[in-house]
Amino acid sequence: MQTFDPLDHPHRRFNPLTGEWVLVSPHRAKRPWQGAEETVSPQQLPQHDPECYLCPGNTRINGELNPNYDAPFVFTNDFSALLPDTPSSEECEDELFQLESARGISRVICFSPDHSKTLPELPLSAISQVIQVWQAQLTELGNTYPWVQVFENKGAAMGCSNPHPHGQVWANSFIPNQIATEDRQQRDYYQRHQRPLLWDYAQKELQQKERLVVETEHWIAVVPWWAVWPFETLLLPKAKVARLTEISTAQRDDLALALKQLTSRYDNLFQCSFPYSMGWHGAPFTDEESTHWQLHAHFYPPLLRSATVRKFMVGYEMLAEVQRDLTPEQAAERLRSVSDRHFRETPQ
Amino acid sequence: MQTFDPLDHPHRRFNPLTGEWVLVSPHRAKRPWQGAEETVSPQQLPQHDPECYLCPGNTRINGELNPNYDAPFVFTNDFSALLPDTPSSEECEDELFQLESARGISRVICFSPDHSKTLPELPLSAISQVIQVWQAQLTELGNTYPWVQVFENKGAAMGCSNPHPHGQVWANSFIPNQIATEDRQQRDYYQRHQRPLLWDYAQKELQQKERLVVETEHWIAVVPWWAVWPFETLLLPKAKVARLTEISTAQRDDLALALKQLTSRYDNLFQCSFPYSMGWHGAPFTDEESTHWQLHAHFYPPLLRSATVRKFMVGYEMLAEVQRDLTPEQAAERLRSVSDRHFRETPQ
Ligand SMILES: O=P(O)(O)O[C@H]1O[C@H](CO)[C@@H](O)[C@H](O)[C@H]1O
Ligand SMILES: O=P(O)(O)O[C@H]1O[C@H](CO)[C@@H](O)[C@H](O)[C@H]1O
Repeated sequence: MQTFDPLDHPHRRFNPLTGEWVLVSPHRAKRPWQGAEETVSPQQLPQHDPECYLCPGNTRINGELNPNYDAPFVFTNDFSALLPDTPSSEECEDELFQLESARGISRVICFSPDHSKTLPELPLSAISQVIQVWQAQLTELGNTYPWVQVFENKGAAMGCSNPHPHGQVWANSFIPNQIATEDRQQRDYYQRHQRPLLWDYAQKELQQKERLVVETEHWIAVVPWWAVWPFETLLLPKAKVARLTEISTAQRDDLALALKQLTSRYDNLFQCSFPYSMGWHGAPFTDEESTHWQLHAHFYPPLLRSATVRKFMVGYEMLAEVQRDLTPEQAAERLRSVSDRHFRETPQ
Repeated sequence: MQTFDPLDHPHRRFNPLTGEWVLVSPHRAKRPWQGAEETVSPQQLPQHDPECYLCPGNTRINGELNPNYDAPFVFTNDFSALLPDTPSSEECEDELFQLESARGISRVICFSPDHSKTLPELPLSAISQVIQVWQAQLTELGNTYPWVQVFENKGAAMGCSNPHPHGQVWANSFIPNQIATEDRQQRDYYQRHQRPLLWDYAQKELQQKERLVVETEHWIAVVPWWAVWPFETLLLPKAKVARLTEISTAQRDDLALALKQLTSRYDNLFQCSFPYSMGWHGAPFTDEESTHWQLHAHFYPPLLRSATVRKFMVGYEMLAEVQRDLTPEQAAERLRSVSDRHFRETPQ
C-alpha cells in the first residue's frame, strides 16, 4: 500500500481554537471551474467620490454631513444591528424556544479620507493611526460591553457595498458564539500546559516556517495548519499579549508594517484588490482571568484561483464539514512567492 | 422602560441542534443595499443542452459518455473531494498539528434527463424517484461508510456550475463536525426527555403554526426558531423516524409532495429559480443506538430581499456570531403568502 502524503491525499486537520475538523482535498485544485465569477473592482478609483457616503464633506444616507476629516473618522452605523437601549426580555420557559435580548453599538471606521486607497496602499503612519483608533474603540466600548468586535469587510465578494477604505466595530452585551468557543478551548489548553495555546503555536510555526507568510520584529502571519479559506491567515504577536489595547508603541508601529506586508502580498497574488473579512480576537472585557488568551487577527479571504474565482462554502461544507482544495503549506508558499511591496506602489 | 418586542428589538435565539446562538436584528431589514447583486438565471432553458456535461447522451469532462437515461442517473464525481483508497496516516504527536487520513466517495445524481426543469417543476412521480435514489445511495454507501451526506447545491449563488437539475452524495469514513454536534445535542436532549429533540420540536411547531410553511399528511417544513439564513427551512417528518431509508412508501410519496410545495413556494417568493443548498441529516450508519435521532432536511437559501440581493455571512458573522435581518416568523409569513403551485406551471 502507498504511504500517506498530505500533498496528495485527502485528510482532516484539527483546529484547536474551535475544536472542529477541516477536510483537506489537495487533488481537487485541478477541478475546472464553470460557475459564477466575481467582479473585479476597477483598477483606479478617484481620491474623492462625490457619490460616496464615507468621503469627507459628503452627506450620509441619513442626511448627516461628514466632517472634512484628515485622520481616521468614526461614526455610529446608520443601520446598526445592535442598539444600546433594547429592553430586557423575559425568562424562557421552553428549552426549544430560547430567546434573550441583545444590546450593543455598531460604528463605522473610515481608515482614510482618500477614497482610492485600501489598507496596503496607505503609508505606515496612516496604518498606525488606524490601529490607534481600534485601540481607542476597544478601550472605550470595553468599559461598557464584555465583547467588542473590530473587523473589516473588504470587497464586493465580502458583502461590502462601498470601496472607501473602512472597517467596523460592533460592541455586544453578550459573548458571541465564536468567542465563547475560543475562550473555552484556550482555557482548557492553558490549564494543561500553563502557556497560551496560540503563543505555543506561534513558536512552533516560527521553527517550522513552512506556513509562515510574514515575519516582522514582533509579529508573524501564517496560513494556519487548520485554515478553512484557501488563503486564510492568522496574525499573531511573538510575545504573550491578551488584548490589542495592551501592546507597546513598538509593537503597534511594527504591527502597521506586518499589516502592510500581509495585505500587499494578498493584493499581489492575483494583482487585484484582494477581498477578505478580517477581525481581532483578544480577551473579553470581563473580570475573568485572561492569561489563557492570546491576541490574534483572522483574515478570511474568499478567492481560490484568480481575482474572479472564489471558494464556495456551500452544500457539503454547510451541512457536514468545511473543506479546502489546496494545503495550507501550498497557500503559504504562494503568498511567500509574491512581493511584500504593493504592485501599485511606485518604486522609490 | 419599553417592553421587549421580538419584532422590533435585537435579540439572540438558541439553536438546540448546534448549541449556538443566532443574533436577530429585525430592524435591519430597512437598510438600503448598494453592494453586489446576484445574476438571475435565464427564464427558460432548453430541455437538452449539447454543451451540458450532465444531459443524456453527452460526453462528460473526463471523456465518458452519459447514457440516454430517462430516470435519475448516478455517476462518480469526476473531481471527488474524497477517494475510497487513501492510505492511513500516522498518529499525531503534537496536539496543535493533528491530522488524520480521510476516505470516501462522491457521486453526482442527475434528478431528471430534462435540462430545463428543477425539482419543483418535476412531476410528483419524478420527485419520488429522486427520493428512492437518495434512499438507495444511503443504503449502499451506509454499508461501508458511517456517514453519507445527500445534498443539492442549486444556483450560481450557491457555487453550482451547472443548471441541469442535480444533487450530490458524499460518503465519509468519519463523522463530520456538524453531525457529531447534532448527535451530541440530540443525545443529551433524549437522555433528559426520552423523546427525540426534533420530534418534540415538530409537535410544538404544529401547535404554534407561526413558523409553519408547508404541512402535508406526514411532513412539515418550518422556518426554525433559530434560522440563520433569511428563508432557511427545516423539513421534518411528523412521526418518529431516524433515517431516510426507514420511511414508509406512503411517507415517501407524501415527501415528494412536501418537497414540491416547499421548493415551489421558494421559487414563487421572488419569481426566480430560488438558489439554496439543501441536505439530509439522519442517524449515522454506526452500531450505536439511534433513538435520539430524528430525520430532517436543512434548506439554506442565500437570498434576502429579491432575486438579486443576498445575505452575506461575512465580517461579524464569520468572526463572532451569525446574524439575521428579519425574524423567522416574518420569513414564514412571506413563504406562506405565496402559492404552493409553481409560477411556471400551466394551470390544468
Ligand atoms: O462539487 P461541485 O458542484 O463541483 O462544487 C460545489 O459543491 C462542493 C460541495 O458542496 C463545494 O465544495 C464547492 O465549493 C462548490 O463549488
Ligand atoms: O454592515 P454592512 O457593511 O452594511 O453589511 C455587511 O457587514 C455586516 C457585518 O459583517 C453583515 O451582517 C452584512 O451581511 C454585510 O453585508
